[in-house]
Amino acid sequence: MIHLREIYLDNSATTRVCPEAAQKALQMMTETYGNPSSLHTKGFEARQELEKARMEAAALLGVEKEEIYFTSGGTESNNTAVLGAARALSRRGKRIVTTAIEHSSVLEAAQQAEKQGFEVIYLTPDSRGIIRQEDLAAAIDGQTILVSMMAVNNETGAIQPIEAVHRLIERAGAPALFHVDGVQAFGKMLLRPRKYGIDLLSASSHKIHGPKGAGILYLRKGARILPLHYGGEQEKRLRPGTEPLPLIAAMGEAVRVLPDREKTLQQMRQLNAYCRQQLLRLQDVKIHSDEQCLPYILNFSVRGIRSETMLHFLAERGIYVSNGSACAGGRKSHVLTAMGLEPDLIVSAIRVSFSAENTMEEIDILIKELLQAENTLARAKGT
Amino acid sequence: MIHLREIYLDNSATTRVCPEAAQKALQMMTETYGNPSSLHTKGFEARQELEKARMEAAALLGVEKEEIYFTSGGTESNNTAVLGAARALSRRGKRIVTTAIEHSSVLEAAQQAEKQGFEVIYLTPDSRGIIRQEDLAAAIDGQTILVSMMAVNNETGAIQPIEAVHRLIERAGAPALFHVDGVQAFGKMLLRPRKYGIDLLSASSHKIHGPKGAGILYLRKGARILPLHYGGEQEKRLRPGTEPLPLIAAMGEAVRVLPDREKTLQQMRQLNAYCRQQLLRLQDVKIHSDEQCLPYILNFSVRGIRSETMLHFLAERGIYVSNGSACAGGRKSHVLTAMGLEPDLIVSAIRVSFSAENTMEEIDILIKELLQAENTLARAKGT
Repeated sequence: MIHLREIYLDNSATTRVCPEAAQKALQMMTETYGNPSSLHTKGFEARQELEKARMEAAALLGVEKEEIYFTSGGTESNNTAVLGAARALSRRGKRIVTTAIEHSSVLEAAQQAEKQGFEVIYLTPDSRGIIRQEDLAAAIDGQTILVSMMAVNNETGAIQPIEAVHRLIERAGAPALFHVDGVQAFGKMLLRPRKYGIDLLSASSHKIHGPKGAGILYLRKGARILPLHYGGEQEKRLRPGTEPLPLIAAMGEAVRVLPDREKTLQQMRQLNAYCRQQLLRLQDVKIHSDEQCLPYILNFSVRGIRSETMLHFLAERGIYVSNGSACAGGRKSHVLTAMGLEPDLIVSAIRVSFSAENTMEEIDILIKELLQAENTLARAKGT
Repeated sequence: MIHLREIYLDNSATTRVCPEAAQKALQMMTETYGNPSSLHTKGFEARQELEKARMEAAALLGVEKEEIYFTSGGTESNNTAVLGAARALSRRGKRIVTTAIEHSSVLEAAQQAEKQGFEVIYLTPDSRGIIRQEDLAAAIDGQTILVSMMAVNNETGAIQPIEAVHRLIERAGAPALFHVDGVQAFGKMLLRPRKYGIDLLSASSHKIHGPKGAGILYLRKGARILPLHYGGEQEKRLRPGTEPLPLIAAMGEAVRVLPDREKTLQQMRQLNAYCRQQLLRLQDVKIHSDEQCLPYILNFSVRGIRSETMLHFLAERGIYVSNGSACAGGRKSHVLTAMGLEPDLIVSAIRVSFSAENTMEEIDILIKELLQAENTLARAKGT
C-alpha cells in the first residue's frame, strides 16, 4: 500500500533507523565484517568498533565501559536481569518485588522464577499508573533478592519512583539487586544508575533510532548474575555468541547522534501539550497519560470506538499509532487494567508515541482524522 | 592498518555480507522499519518481510515455513535446542548423547544440563575427527532424551554421520529428540531434516554472507521444547522479543542468492585440493582435515610455529586465517585434542576456510607467505 503521507506516531513500538546508524551498519556488513573474536586485523578492527559502541553507551549512562554488556535486545536484557539475578541469589532469599505494569519480558520472566520457587510480589499502580512508594516499602523485606521496576511505562509514559528503591532495599537490609527496565527511558530522560543505586539496567537500540536486534544490559561492577546463554567467551561470558556487530556499532552511532536531551524533551512537551489540548475537541475522549508522564507517550481513549477499529481507520489514512504494547500482539492491556480503568476505556485505548521527527502539523492531521473517525465510525460498544 | 591486499580465508569464523543482503538490511532500517507485531500498515509490511525470509529458509531445508524459528544466532539456536529439549523431556529420561567436538554453545549448554541432573555422554571422534557409529549405538539407550551432533565440524570440516542417528534412536526405543548443529553445513551441503529424521537444526546467518545477529532454529512440527526467553508472542513464544528484522530479512536475501550448491562445492573442492597439494611444499606440514571433509575448511599445522605467531605473520601480510574457533578466543583446541593429536601439532594448528569469493591466486600467495614464514620465523617449540 502506498500513501502520499506517512505520519509515524508509534515510536515506542519501534523507530526509523537514523541515517548515521544505518550507514554504520552498512559499513560493518561490507567492510569491517571481521569476527571480533578473531585474532587477526579484521578481528581487531571489529573489536575496536565494538568497544567504541560500548563507550558511547557507558557515557550516556555515566558508567564504566566494563559495566556495559551487549545483548540481542530489550527482551533478552530484561530476561537476563530477572532470571540471572534470581539464579545468582537464590540462596540469599526467595522474594522478588516487581510491578503489575512491567513489560511482558519482565513479567513472564518473573512468572518463570515463581515456577522455580520464588515468591513474586506484583505491585499495582495508582490510578495515574504510578507505583506507590509505600507499597514498595511494604513489599521489600529482608529476604528480597530482586526489585525490578521500569523507569517509564511503555503504554502510558508514567514515570516510576526509581529514586526511592535503593533506600528501601537498604532499610530492609535486603540482599536485593535493583533492576530497572530502562527501555522507554534510555536516551530520553536522565538515567544515572550510580545516582539511583541501580545494579542492572536494560535498554534497547530500536527505540532510539538504532536497528532492531541489539540491546544493552548495564551490570554494576561487583554485582553478579548468572547467564542465560552458554558458549564462547564473548561479553565476559554473560552473553556468548558472535556479537551482532553491525547492530551494535549502529546502536553506538544512534547513541552518539542523540539530539540534546533537554531540548528534545522540550519539543516533546510542546507536541504532547498541543495534542492533549486538541484531543479535547473530540466529543468523548479520556486521556490516560497525566501531565507528569514522560511526554514521548500519550495514551487516550475515544469512548465507543475499539482500538483496532480506530487503528485501522488511521492506518488507512497513513497515520500509525498503536493500541498499547506491540509485544502484546493485540491482547487487552494489562497496564490499563492494573490502573483500574473501566473496560470500555481499555478496549478503546490508543497510544500515540512521538519522536523528534514529528511535527505540530502531523498532530493537526491526527486530530482531524480522529474527529472524522468519531463522526463516521460505528460505535460498537466494547465489552 | 591499511593493506594493499586483503585475502580473507577465515570464512568459517564469519563472512563478508553479500551486497543483496546488505542492501536489504539497509532498506529494512530506513524504509520498512515497522515493528512486525504492530497492527498497522508499517507492521504489516514488516511482517511480510519476516515471512518471506522464513519461506527462504524453509525452502533451503525442504521443510515447512511453520517449522522455522528465528533467533539471535547460532549460539542461541544451539542453547535453545539443547536446554529447551532437556527441560521439555526431563521426565522421560536423563541421558543426553553428544560429542567432544561440538561447538562451545552445545558443549557448555550440555554441561549446564549436567548441573541440572542430566547424564551427558561426550563421544570422542576417531583420528580423522569423525564420530564412530558404533559409539553412537552404544551410547544411545532407552533413557536418552536428546542426541546433539554437528553436521560438519567447525575446525576440521569433518562430516559427521548424522544419517545414522535417527535409526539408532528408534532401535533403542528412546524418547530422544535429535538436534543437529548445522551452522557450518547450512547452505554448503544438502541438509534435509526430513530425510535424516532431524527434530532440531541450528543455522547462522553470518556464515553464509548474511549479517551477524540472526540465526535459525528448525523445530519439527510435533516436537516440543521449552523456550529460553520469556515475553511477547513473537516466534510462537519460542523466541519472544522484537524480531531483528533488518538482519532476518537480510539473512533471507543471503539464502535466496546462495550460488548453486553443487557448483560451489566443486569450486571449493578445487581450491581445497590445490591448497592441500601446495602445502606439501612446506618442509614440515601436517594436514588434519582429510579428503572426506567438507572442502570449505582445511586445517593443518606447520610444525614448530605456534598458531598465534603464524596468524600474526600472515595478518601483517593481509592474509586472514584462524587458529580454530573464533568463539574459543585463543584457547587450545578441544577438537584437535579429542582427535588425539600431539600437543605440538595442536598449538601450531591453522584453519583456512574458504568462500566462493576466494581464488587460486590467493592460495598461491598464502603458500608463498607460509614458505616465507617457515624460513624466517623462530621455531619456538610448542608445549
